[in-house]
Amino acid sequence: MNGAQSLIHTLVDHGVDTCFMNPGTSEMHFVAALDDVPTMRGVLALFEGVATGAADGYARIAGRPAATLLHLGPGLGNGLANLHNARRAHSPVVNIVGDHAKSHRPYDAQLQSDIATVARNVSPFVRTTESTAALGQDARDALAAAYGPPGSVATLILPADVSWNDGGSVAPVVGGIGSGPALGALPAVDVLDAAAAALRSGERTALFIGGRVCSGPLLQAAADLAASTGAELLCETFPARLARGAGRPPVERLGYLAEFAAIRLDGIRHLVLLDAKSPVSFFAYPGKLSDLVPEGCTVHPLVGPADDVALAVAALGELVGTSVGTGPLQDAGRPGLPSGALTAQTVCQALGALLPEGAIVSDEGNTAGLFAPGATAGAPPHDWLCLTGGAIGQGLPVAVGAAVAAPDRRVIALEADGSALYTIQSLWTMAREDLDVTTVILNNHSYAVLNMELDRVGAESPGPRARDMLDLSRPDLDFVQIARGLGLSAARAETAEQFNEELARSFATPGPSVVEAVIPGIL
Amino acid sequence: MNGAQSLIHTLVDHGVDTCFMNPGTSEMHFVAALDDVPTMRGVLALFEGVATGAADGYARIAGRPAATLLHLGPGLGNGLANLHNARRAHSPVVNIVGDHAKSHRPYDAQLQSDIATVARNVSPFVRTTESTAALGQDARDALAAAYGPPGSVATLILPADVSWNDGGSVAPVVGGIGSGPALGALPAVDVLDAAAAALRSGERTALFIGGRVCSGPLLQAAADLAASTGAELLCETFPARLARGAGRPPVERLGYLAEFAAIRLDGIRHLVLLDAKSPVSFFAYPGKLSDLVPEGCTVHPLVGPADDVALAVAALGELVGTSVGTGPLQDAGRPGLPSGALTAQTVCQALGALLPEGAIVSDEGNTAGLFAPGATAGAPPHDWLCLTGGAIGQGLPVAVGAAVAAPDRRVIALEADGSALYTIQSLWTMAREDLDVTTVILNNHSYAVLNMELDRVGAESPGPRARDMLDLSRPDLDFVQIARGLGLSAARAETAEQFNEELARSFATPGPSVVEAVIPGIL
Repeated sequence: MNGAQSLIHTLVDHGVDTCFMNPGTSEMHFVAALDDVPTMRGVLALFEGVATGAADGYARIAGRPAATLLHLGPGLGNGLANLHNARRAHSPVVNIVGDHAKSHRPYDAQLQSDIATVARNVSPFVRTTESTAALGQDARDALAAAYGPPGSVATLILPADVSWNDGGSVAPVVGGIGSGPALGALPAVDVLDAAAAALRSGERTALFIGGRVCSGPLLQAAADLAASTGAELLCETFPARLARGAGRPPVERLGYLAEFAAIRLDGIRHLVLLDAKSPVSFFAYPGKLSDLVPEGCTVHPLVGPADDVALAVAALGELVGTSVGTGPLQDAGRPGLPSGALTAQTVCQALGALLPEGAIVSDEGNTAGLFAPGATAGAPPHDWLCLTGGAIGQGLPVAVGAAVAAPDRRVIALEADGSALYTIQSLWTMAREDLDVTTVILNNHSYAVLNMELDRVGAESPGPRARDMLDLSRPDLDFVQIARGLGLSAARAETAEQFNEELARSFATPGPSVVEAVIPGIL
Repeated sequence: MNGAQSLIHTLVDHGVDTCFMNPGTSEMHFVAALDDVPTMRGVLALFEGVATGAADGYARIAGRPAATLLHLGPGLGNGLANLHNARRAHSPVVNIVGDHAKSHRPYDAQLQSDIATVARNVSPFVRTTESTAALGQDARDALAAAYGPPGSVATLILPADVSWNDGGSVAPVVGGIGSGPALGALPAVDVLDAAAAALRSGERTALFIGGRVCSGPLLQAAADLAASTGAELLCETFPARLARGAGRPPVERLGYLAEFAAIRLDGIRHLVLLDAKSPVSFFAYPGKLSDLVPEGCTVHPLVGPADDVALAVAALGELVGTSVGTGPLQDAGRPGLPSGALTAQTVCQALGALLPEGAIVSDEGNTAGLFAPGATAGAPPHDWLCLTGGAIGQGLPVAVGAAVAAPDRRVIALEADGSALYTIQSLWTMAREDLDVTTVILNNHSYAVLNMELDRVGAESPGPRARDMLDLSRPDLDFVQIARGLGLSAARAETAEQFNEELARSFATPGPSVVEAVIPGIL
């Protein structure tokens, strides 16, 4: 058994059976080994950022890691932005980066670079495997690091000769890696007591939830905790995965704009963090504060991403006496189908009217998608995946990964025109894998969010040359043609009626398609 | 004057008047300052890899740096592969990466990451500017590092508040930075003597040229040196810029395939390196040597990228007694226009038949472009830009930068289908800037080079699942639609006659266009 074969067997034995890849010469033995281990599914991407973003999306939905396979330092560079997003989302990813053969290192060949250093930026675990015999064990260590908690990007650097040499051995599963949620650290008793005291204090208190608390039974437990104690329930601005819709606890996301977030938090005296970071503004602005916690508010960091969140929430519930099932649930209710002009608002209205049960929304709609959460609040149960790490170009790849993880669910990529272009190659993988993804491109012909930010940062009277750097209308992008060129069926909608029809058609048609929504700028 | 204004003024005063950018919120003051300094041209890219590759192409043709403007760590990541290529090509680039405001650092906001560490992978000079007052001077230091020698990527990390605060001052030009070629180190006398002795020895000796020796007067001097001493003249496999065509010294490029390169070098007793590295194979292969220097051959590293190459070549010429003008010059001669089936060979034949005088070819044709150098050898004088660093996705961005640097020349991007997809967003910038670029996409529906490498690495009997990972035909990519969607005119050719016509039409039509050449796989 060569190294590559032992690696793939070890991955599969630990629950990792999907690999999003864009391989090169140094990864050819890994590719060849796919025929030896048919339980490993290889998913080809035309660009590394698609592969890494898909691994992130896969993990958010499957709850376990996929592997990636990237080609040397430049391949890692191309995948870095979406690995950054995965790091911020605490998505487990086994990030395999091929390297030159060890024997080739002294020659500083054209593609040689310092892979490990770049990887450390996104990956707490980085290891270069130095022998074929050690590869299985190294893979197991990477798997353990990826699963966490905290869920992490774990990078395994794989020299070509380690991969092609004989002498590989499959690492057995020990310690339950991959067989269920791992335990994390327990909350400190004093923090737990302080949080409980805050909830009982009668002062305005909010539970600020994120990460694992935003879906599954923990979301219900947090809602019950809030309802039982009179606390407010708030969620981080861009949760990695938020379960929502009719019959689920409604959760308010803290606004992106720091001005509005500060107003929302004003007057709160205690903020109990449940798998969330203390809120800070996304960017800094001249003369404005970065820290959004109001003066006089005490922050209680009860659970972080490395902690045992279920136990902490249960312990807090016990201390304050939570009544199970007291948290309010969202009423069912959809907006009617829109008519007339197509705008950011009517696009979102149509989405709310038609969203299929069990849908997954990968949301990178930016300014144009602002109305989507409101319009879909009472739609049938669904999951919402946000831009947790802030690096644009995530929406389409995350949709790819989510659809691979959940082949029985409709995935909707809600994309802004500017953001879509970073990883537009994703569309081809959707077609190749025949994924049930509806991509909605909100085309307002500009980097609208930057036009807003240009004003917000207080740049003095921006002139025509500055505005021109944020303009996408010279020439206009035609996403219907781009999508068709990448192998998908696609349609353009310029009225609400057209959009309703195309969206319904896409939802009803197996496989991927693109609907370009031509909308005016909203700013 | 705020920091951004002082930075742009300093860049322009030092000869940097073009900035390829994909900005975000933290770079908005730089963008706003474009209206204050109209001599700085901002060129917008839809993806950072386009911006960094364009800066590389610009430097190869203009002989001076452009600036880039990237958004935080993820933006740098997206640009990293083409910065790797620029590093290998010794292209000067002033790489400006915006960062969060210094005041925002303590909060570890979503997009925060360790920019400097990632930048060091491609950039010997990395500096974070800590005060607005220091920004002009820091920019000047970055400029000095970029110009070199060696020409380098120099990274300036620019916190948003350093950019927006008042108190900037323009750094005056001192020491002639940017005003002409800087001097480098002189060759060691013993190396010079040994190289001269080798050339006079009567043993088989080759001049192995690269970098700055591949164009301009130094190419002629090297050819004269070879002709006067009976040495062979060889050039590195992927020179950053090779001047060629009728009336110029013909230079043989060392082959990409290590097997062929080893045969070519067999029997050579002395290899004199002129701004080139000692030849090594691109990748390692099981049981094959990485070092291509034959046994018993002495390597003379006369000039490296940090050295004064003009002086070294002149000194060597003086020692061995070069006769100026003895080097052979390429005869003029073009192949006839092809007819019949369109293949990799007939595409290149048409290119040779029609190549305009003064053309610049950005060559990322990979396997499909193998015939291009032969077919164009006797065409009118032109420049050839290669994949020096080996990171795929360079061809289209380099064409963008070359066209911005030389608006009076026709640029041809010779692109493979697989490679084109990494940075396909380049096409939009070509349209926006109305650049005279002809993009030829060699569409053979596969990662053909990897199919070849899969066999070469000795992967045992690759099966269908492995081959599937190298297949781009499911679905087929339609580059005509993709190009039109990105705002360009485009046509498909399926016969040689159609290709001749479309290529001629593109060359005769100002502005950019795309010709998709549908060809069979050659392997």
